[in-house]
Amino acid sequence: MPRVVVDVMPKPEILDPQGKAVLGALPRLGFTGVSDVRQGKRFELEVEGEVTDDVLAEVSRVAETLLSNPVIENFTVRVEESVEVRA
Amino acid sequence: MPRVVVDVMPKPEILDPQGKAVLGALPRLGFTGVSDVRQGKRFELEVEGEVTDDVLAEVSRVAETLLSNPVIENFTVRVEESVEVRA
Repeated sequence: MPRVVVDVMPKPEILDPQGKAVLGALPRLGFTGVSDVRQGKRFELEVEGEVTDDVLAEVSRVAETLLSNPVIENFTVRVEESVEVRA
Repeated sequence: MPRVVVDVMPKPEILDPQGKAVLGALPRLGFTGVSDVRQGKRFELEVEGEVTDDVLAEVSRVAETLLSNPVIENFTVRVEESVEVRA
């Protein structure tokens, strides 16, 4: 079954306290190579049937109205091609 | 600056009330083509310097200890290759 992924991230100009909290915790874990962290949301939508342009447009409307707050967040919609190895 | 993305998703066998809430709201928005929704987290880490295997291994340790709860969540670590068009 095809999977459509919607990533929702805080806009660059918006403060991201969750990301800042992670960034602040990294040195305490002994990790120093990271200069910034942003935290957002990831949605995996299982779509019935084929993923057409119409379906992607519909998912974009869902992302805009239900999954994100367009005032403070950006979103991307994409079809997940390959199965990734999960840890 | 290279960006490493960590996706954290609830394990398949774990209940996902947030995803279920989204799934339940879709018909009320007139969208019927989605059979399941899972909600997770997405972290974007800006890394200083080159992304070597050592850096990815370190980010994996961060993902395991700080970004995810390995009991109920899976995570993936990957380097973001291309810039996607954001809505």
